[in-house]
Amino acid sequence: MKFRNLVSKRYKEVPADCQIVSQALMTRGGYIKSVGNGIFSLFPPTVRVVRKIEEIIREEMNRIDGQEVLFPVAMPAALWQESGRYTSVGSELVRFTDRSGGQMVLGMTHEEAAVHLTRDVMDSYTQFPFMIYQIQTKFRDEPRARGGLIRVREFTMKDGYSYHTTQEDLEKYYLRCHEVYERIFARAGLPEVISVASDSGMMGGKVAHEFMFVTEIGEDTLVLCDACDYRANMEAAPLIVENQTDEIQPLAKVATPDVKTIEALCAFLGIEAAQTCKAVVYRINETDQRVVVFLRGDLEVNETKLRNHLKAEIHPDVSEEGDSAITYGFLGPIGLDKSCVVVYDQSLVGIESLVTGANEPDAHLTGFNIARDVGKVAYVDVAKTYEGAICPKCGAYTISIQRGIEVGNIFQLGDKYSKAMGMQYADSDGELKTPVMGCYGIGVGRLAASVCEARHDDNGPIWPMPIAPWQVEICSLRADQEEVAEVSQSLYGALGASGIESLWDDRAVSAGVMFADADLMGVPIRAVVSPKGLKDGTIELAMRDKSKLVKVPVDEAVSMIREWITEEMARYAVD
Amino acid sequence: MKFRNLVSKRYKEVPADCQIVSQALMTRGGYIKSVGNGIFSLFPPTVRVVRKIEEIIREEMNRIDGQEVLFPVAMPAALWQESGRYTSVGSELVRFTDRSGGQMVLGMTHEEAAVHLTRDVMDSYTQFPFMIYQIQTKFRDEPRARGGLIRVREFTMKDGYSYHTTQEDLEKYYLRCHEVYERIFARAGLPEVISVASDSGMMGGKVAHEFMFVTEIGEDTLVLCDACDYRANMEAAPLIVENQTDEIQPLAKVATPDVKTIEALCAFLGIEAAQTCKAVVYRINETDQRVVVFLRGDLEVNETKLRNHLKAEIHPDVSEEGDSAITYGFLGPIGLDKSCVVVYDQSLVGIESLVTGANEPDAHLTGFNIARDVGKVAYVDVAKTYEGAICPKCGAYTISIQRGIEVGNIFQLGDKYSKAMGMQYADSDGELKTPVMGCYGIGVGRLAASVCEARHDDNGPIWPMPIAPWQVEICSLRADQEEVAEVSQSLYGALGASGIESLWDDRAVSAGVMFADADLMGVPIRAVVSPKGLKDGTIELAMRDKSKLVKVPVDEAVSMIREWITEEMARYAVD
Repeated sequence: MKFRNLVSKRYKEVPADCQIVSQALMTRGGYIKSVGNGIFSLFPPTVRVVRKIEEIIREEMNRIDGQEVLFPVAMPAALWQESGRYTSVGSELVRFTDRSGGQMVLGMTHEEAAVHLTRDVMDSYTQFPFMIYQIQTKFRDEPRARGGLIRVREFTMKDGYSYHTTQEDLEKYYLRCHEVYERIFARAGLPEVISVASDSGMMGGKVAHEFMFVTEIGEDTLVLCDACDYRANMEAAPLIVENQTDEIQPLAKVATPDVKTIEALCAFLGIEAAQTCKAVVYRINETDQRVVVFLRGDLEVNETKLRNHLKAEIHPDVSEEGDSAITYGFLGPIGLDKSCVVVYDQSLVGIESLVTGANEPDAHLTGFNIARDVGKVAYVDVAKTYEGAICPKCGAYTISIQRGIEVGNIFQLGDKYSKAMGMQYADSDGELKTPVMGCYGIGVGRLAASVCEARHDDNGPIWPMPIAPWQVEICSLRADQEEVAEVSQSLYGALGASGIESLWDDRAVSAGVMFADADLMGVPIRAVVSPKGLKDGTIELAMRDKSKLVKVPVDEAVSMIREWITEEMARYAVD
Repeated sequence: MKFRNLVSKRYKEVPADCQIVSQALMTRGGYIKSVGNGIFSLFPPTVRVVRKIEEIIREEMNRIDGQEVLFPVAMPAALWQESGRYTSVGSELVRFTDRSGGQMVLGMTHEEAAVHLTRDVMDSYTQFPFMIYQIQTKFRDEPRARGGLIRVREFTMKDGYSYHTTQEDLEKYYLRCHEVYERIFARAGLPEVISVASDSGMMGGKVAHEFMFVTEIGEDTLVLCDACDYRANMEAAPLIVENQTDEIQPLAKVATPDVKTIEALCAFLGIEAAQTCKAVVYRINETDQRVVVFLRGDLEVNETKLRNHLKAEIHPDVSEEGDSAITYGFLGPIGLDKSCVVVYDQSLVGIESLVTGANEPDAHLTGFNIARDVGKVAYVDVAKTYEGAICPKCGAYTISIQRGIEVGNIFQLGDKYSKAMGMQYADSDGELKTPVMGCYGIGVGRLAASVCEARHDDNGPIWPMPIAPWQVEICSLRADQEEVAEVSQSLYGALGASGIESLWDDRAVSAGVMFADADLMGVPIRAVVSPKGLKDGTIELAMRDKSKLVKVPVDEAVSMIREWITEEMARYAVD
């Protein structure tokens, strides 16, 4: 198509409210338009990118026998009541009432719809296993939308659901899906995506992986091992501690006037934070009951781990001193108010002598020994791991903490939804059984933005060939000159006839403007038709990533472009 | 793919609650699954049909320089407040509140989003004209969802928006779009779709056309001329009346005890309904004011025409006798309560002597002459035309009333949205001007269901080749026999290698069940591999529409199938 008709506009300046590079470039380049908080319209170049990603996803899903279906965006609440999620999911689930008073929800994920679609029709073991998927709009009322298409409220997602008669079959299929996900990210131009073990959160189930594009601007914290292939997200990474054996000391109360933080305590007593037993206080949302977590003073609580342990939603306790039965700043296990739920983190295991609060103002205890002073307690893992911690897999002190963007996820759901919603099939012996399920998501727009985040320079995106909005951009310098116009027109026609997608810029703008715009479009191959080149009978061909720049005779341009396209496609090919 | 793994199930019985054939067949065939009132999930065969329709639409939209974009499903209410439709559109527009209290709507059409996307970026006359379109989910809270995918609340729609600097340019583009719509319906297997002039309703603008599949089960009433090419929907069809000249009579009051209907009046006085002046009473929603429409007694009011004339929403007056200042059953123009809005339909023009109500109980007036007894009045066209009425185009008494399903519509919007939302461009002389717009919709799912409605027999849909879920179905009778299995496998492989989509049924079911299921799948070409056929070394090829049935040598099957596909595609090709 002609650049002059392209519905979009490019800007020189970086918009003020952009948090990350891809957002800035996609705004400057006329890719996205904010319609509201976390809600975007997509300009034509983005739709072209997104459609290509969707087609790659479709091909790969079909490769593992996926069948494309379509679930509704708006669903009766009854469906979510069946699974229990209508009440268990918070305000990220949009609820509304239709004209006849019916309670409705907007789909943020479609496990319920998937079971609803299949439970009456897939009722014999002979029909298993199978997988259905859709590519559809979802709405999740995120409290913190940010970063352009990276974290939005409305998004296009591929979500797939597989059904199996045995856990073994699910696991086998799960591995195939894992492999196909790697193919998808590679083919979409982001082969560096890694998978990490993850917590399954509100989805239910046990085994889960997230596919992460590792980048500083990511919102997820990843735990990677520098020595082995251990990879998990923070919620799923156990903290392994090896406390050095220390001596048992007698329990003693010391005066610590106004010493309310671990930092102050360590300074006051001249000890290390790792020698203290810190208290962190939460409240259970539903009951408002206090939860006091005791952990090694140098560590932090991971709230997801704590939530999973308690099987309850929690929030940090923000009570003020004096409004309570407990003594903030001086909390410790001995003499703590009985109404509190107490959690001991396993980071305390093996420390014989701890400093902790005395549960009275301006006093701490030294020589605190849990077994001796409290008795036998159950230790759980609710602390965050940290840079240089012990790898749970290889045991070396090689844990590295990085950040990433989650571009996909896969879950072994087990029978959570099939059981709650009464899906059953007749097994070979006629017995009715509940299938187990897996589910598999990819955020399409987020993937597009991640590719931009990974493949760009200061001047714009550098779209990989398989998902580029166009394959070639023709820049006609001085299209008012007859020869330039003729050669450009003929090149444009020849590319079209060869099935090559090209964007043709024949505007009467300076070379500087034209090339700056081309950089923002990020089209992989640029063909410059200029009076200067045509004097030698040549067209200049260049790769957007600066890897190649040649002058070719006019009549060889199409074949060289075709060659370059083949090479570029091969770069991202899998198999 | 293999039939045994297909996610869907087929039923022998017609479901009880099906109103129309396509709904019954698509339910029996495992195409759609009701999730709620007017909300469906689509099984894989339907998604395959729908994707092919979408691809045809894309190709044709791109042919007229359309650029694909994507608007949000959920939008801030502010956008709809800008156009005024947030208040003017009724409860078919879903409104909800997000987690931070923001007012939101679900898009049922996207004029506002289209202007929002373009108004800042398309600001020079050099960028015009242009057209953007999307294929996206919409939600319209229909009060009367029915007929499977024919009238739903959630649906996939292609909606396009064109922008022009002049009305002439809009009209020129509108014609191109009209032509492309005809191409789309023809290519999708429904060339019999006709366009009718239509009322633009809540969209605004003046010129509009609806694309109609003419069928008795349609919900729209069409006015067609048997003699010329006049075609309109009921709302847009003027009623042309030629009243015979009659004599002026003196006005006289006659006692008509308890004679409250036109039928009773005609019987009582021995006159024709066309000699009476009937009153029909409405109320204006906003003010509750009464509207009394006077029209020829044999005619009916068209409420859309009346609504457009009054520029106000109305509803039939359901007041009871005695609860009011006016005398129900005996209403007439003379002495009517002054608080009523009075509308004279032009069907009364030229009748010199009418019978009408006397505005007092049990009395009518005869010899009523509007000009003499009321004075000069403004006549408007608010009555429905009827079978055998005068064609507004050719003037013959050849009007035929038919029913149809609206599968697409196009509107010349004018500047309604661009003006309300402040979209302007700089013209060649630098002057700021407001563009005019057109908008263009196609309901994708409704089109699929309409094709099923048009192309089926008692046993199932007969999908046209261009949109068929698969091109070939292989029925392997006795796939447990080695030769049948081998030949089937090799045919299935050869078709796949030729890029032909096939569904392979190798289930251990009777031929009856297999063929009944194949009929419900509606795949155009059937290839039967059976022990009997293989004795002669042949496969049986048949068209689902029964137009062909041949036995071909096994090794010629693929080439004949390829030939048949080419022929079938040619049947629906355009150009």
